[in-house]
Amino acid sequence: MYKLFRPVLFVCGIVAWVMAGFLIIPALYSLYSGDQEHNAFFVASGIVAACGVVMMAPGYAPPFSLNARQLYLLTGLSWLSLSFFSAAPFMLVSHPMSLADAVFEAVSGITTTGSTVLNHLAQTPPSILLWRSMLQWIGGFGVIGMAITILPFLRVGGMRLFQTESSDWSDKSMPRFQAMARGLLVVYLGLTILCSASYWLAGMTPFDAINHAMATVSTGGFATDDSSMGRFSLDILWISTFFMILGGLPFTLYIRFLHSRRLAALKDEQVVAFLVIVVGLVAALTLQRMTISDESFYSILTHNAFNIVSVITTTGFASQDYTQWGMFAVAMFFFVTFIGACSGSTSGGMKIFRFQLSWLFLREQMQKLVHPNGVFSARYNGKPITDDIMGSAVAFSFLFFLVLTVTTFLLVLIGLDFVTALTGAATALTNVGPGLGDVIGPAGNFATVPDSGKWLLSFAMILGRLEMLTLMVLFTPIFWRG
Amino acid sequence: MYKLFRPVLFVCGIVAWVMAGFLIIPALYSLYSGDQEHNAFFVASGIVAACGVVMMAPGYAPPFSLNARQLYLLTGLSWLSLSFFSAAPFMLVSHPMSLADAVFEAVSGITTTGSTVLNHLAQTPPSILLWRSMLQWIGGFGVIGMAITILPFLRVGGMRLFQTESSDWSDKSMPRFQAMARGLLVVYLGLTILCSASYWLAGMTPFDAINHAMATVSTGGFATDDSSMGRFSLDILWISTFFMILGGLPFTLYIRFLHSRRLAALKDEQVVAFLVIVVGLVAALTLQRMTISDESFYSILTHNAFNIVSVITTTGFASQDYTQWGMFAVAMFFFVTFIGACSGSTSGGMKIFRFQLSWLFLREQMQKLVHPNGVFSARYNGKPITDDIMGSAVAFSFLFFLVLTVTTFLLVLIGLDFVTALTGAATALTNVGPGLGDVIGPAGNFATVPDSGKWLLSFAMILGRLEMLTLMVLFTPIFWRG
Repeated sequence: MYKLFRPVLFVCGIVAWVMAGFLIIPALYSLYSGDQEHNAFFVASGIVAACGVVMMAPGYAPPFSLNARQLYLLTGLSWLSLSFFSAAPFMLVSHPMSLADAVFEAVSGITTTGSTVLNHLAQTPPSILLWRSMLQWIGGFGVIGMAITILPFLRVGGMRLFQTESSDWSDKSMPRFQAMARGLLVVYLGLTILCSASYWLAGMTPFDAINHAMATVSTGGFATDDSSMGRFSLDILWISTFFMILGGLPFTLYIRFLHSRRLAALKDEQVVAFLVIVVGLVAALTLQRMTISDESFYSILTHNAFNIVSVITTTGFASQDYTQWGMFAVAMFFFVTFIGACSGSTSGGMKIFRFQLSWLFLREQMQKLVHPNGVFSARYNGKPITDDIMGSAVAFSFLFFLVLTVTTFLLVLIGLDFVTALTGAATALTNVGPGLGDVIGPAGNFATVPDSGKWLLSFAMILGRLEMLTLMVLFTPIFWRG
Repeated sequence: MYKLFRPVLFVCGIVAWVMAGFLIIPALYSLYSGDQEHNAFFVASGIVAACGVVMMAPGYAPPFSLNARQLYLLTGLSWLSLSFFSAAPFMLVSHPMSLADAVFEAVSGITTTGSTVLNHLAQTPPSILLWRSMLQWIGGFGVIGMAITILPFLRVGGMRLFQTESSDWSDKSMPRFQAMARGLLVVYLGLTILCSASYWLAGMTPFDAINHAMATVSTGGFATDDSSMGRFSLDILWISTFFMILGGLPFTLYIRFLHSRRLAALKDEQVVAFLVIVVGLVAALTLQRMTISDESFYSILTHNAFNIVSVITTTGFASQDYTQWGMFAVAMFFFVTFIGACSGSTSGGMKIFRFQLSWLFLREQMQKLVHPNGVFSARYNGKPITDDIMGSAVAFSFLFFLVLTVTTFLLVLIGLDFVTALTGAATALTNVGPGLGDVIGPAGNFATVPDSGKWLLSFAMILGRLEMLTLMVLFTPIFWRG
């Protein structure tokens, strides 16, 4: 047991130190803006750093090589500890949040969900707003890093489809991971700077521009005002739409572009399907709304594109209360919540490639109905889809709906109405942000959800972020017998 | 093409003759009861018989052997033509229904769904009520017959799991099928007589007893009053609950019991899981409702058991408007709609065994996460689950949710609100009967749904009844190129 946990705790300790470092930024910004919250962030930084020291105390024995069980433990524990490290300052500020609220807000941040328990964001001290946006940015980086380096080596939810090389996760792969992490950092930082600059040029204040850029590129969705993005111009909505789409594409393609200058994205089946779906949904909703609304075409198109892209990339910004757009829109936003964007991006949800695999699988089954002895071999991006990959993608979907059902029931028992419970569970598991209904819809927030519901939803957000199985496996007897 | 269709049309012709014969019964009952509708039924019988003559005109060439494509065509076309044959009298009675209404009511009958477009059932001529109940009884017999004889030979939705012998569908299997059909008829008729007698002894009129018995044993759900079963005593509800459960069990087990006098049911994994789930759901809902209701324990337990069994067996009777029982009940009835009972029974839905297969599959995937090179072989009722069976069960689930999504969208476009559209699509595809919401909930009916919606839902009911793939495959280019 000690051998199992030691290297894992060591990595969690590194995570703590990184977060302690990041906490200095809002502290300094608090001093600059004079919002009197600097002590909260300095103290939080100290506490988190101390946690890091404790976790790293057992040290680690090289060579630094992790087996599958340790990778699962590492992934699960690092995100759980990250949640608490991130929540610390929220409990130390001048209007401290309860533990449940602080953890919910922090988890919603790092999982890039974007659901909030805060009201009156415009009156919230700017350093707190900055920390919220930073959490999304950090979480977005973390999840892509995880999707590139760890998940393809685990048999989770069909992610092996994106494994670039067949090798163990050991010292040998470190140099390649480090190169990828550097590439990722360049791309991610570059996109954030571009997005900030565009927002600023289009009329946002520098503070709003940076905050919203961090929440856009990470497909997070935290805004600095209760109206989400509702107070900004149509130009800004288009900029946001553009960068949310970029945040929903596989970051490996950007990194590859950095090296080879070739646009592999245009041939990637996942990317093509994602863009086709977005265009199709926006076109359908625009056609439908043109018949019932007297808004101008351009305004309808802009709000449709922005809000659909926001939900499908699992960002969760809103520019209007789209639940007031009629039943077709409600149905669309309900189903789009589940879709998600590309694997290897910052977006959550079930992900386009799982729907593509399911579709290929269904077609194969249909062919087998007519030609029982035929041999069919579906391919994805040129690679054959092994039974192994198909199996784990299917297992993901089944587990997703199972967890959705259980979470919905628990939320109903806690006291939420059925639509709030169902869409709340869905929006947490997919890391989207808003649900449907008056309470947690795009015009509401999660402040009035009971504490037990906030804990449950926090756990659901982490589950969703870790592609379910990565975390669920820790709760099986098989794992610990292993 | 001629060779493909000729034997299929011949069988449809036989179906027409059988229906023409059945139509004589309500005609005679109309004469007996004096409700003046006998002409409608006699004329309908003549028309349907004439259709049969036309369909059988090309004759058939022995040996009577069908390939897979012909079995799909046969299944699809016989249910489609059965729908129109069954609808004929509804358009000829003294208050004739529109084509859409007549087909909806007929399809709801033969698919044993039990949704109705009729108001004021108590004032409806008794011969029409009798025909509605008979449709459910005939449909129930048809679907079990199909599940026993045809479906296990097709690669549809994992039904091969229930294939008893590996052989072609040809002349050779005819004697065995005839023996099974005779056994089925004895069991089905026996259950119906027992159920009628029990209802009658418990206080129903003979007419109500026979009608409700036909709608109970077939897990259909047509009642003779707008209040469904709401006007009957708790004793009658328990009798109904008992016979709905019997209708939800695999009829092969009864037939085997007739031959061997051994209760194989008690060892069948499907049956055990079904009963455990029913008891668990009833217990959970009873515990929850005891805390919020001041009704007596016995009354709560009775209504819970009756309505949950009614929905899980996809019967669709209601004794109260359970959507008024609070959000926990609403959530439960929403999810239970999808479950369904046992394969080989009259019930629809996704069926218990598919959830069991998914669960076994998920467990296997979890084991593989920890032991990547382990070999696992899940078994069901002692049989190994082949990739083939697992694959088609998975394909069924995916297709189910795909069709559910598309149907919901279409219903929303037609003008239904989101909850009515979603639960209407679900209740049609699962052949349950009532949905949620004011319009189509257990206290409402489908009368006000626009005609286009009724056509769509009629098609969905047949799709659901034929395990989706059996009918869907007819709409693929592969099928017709084949």
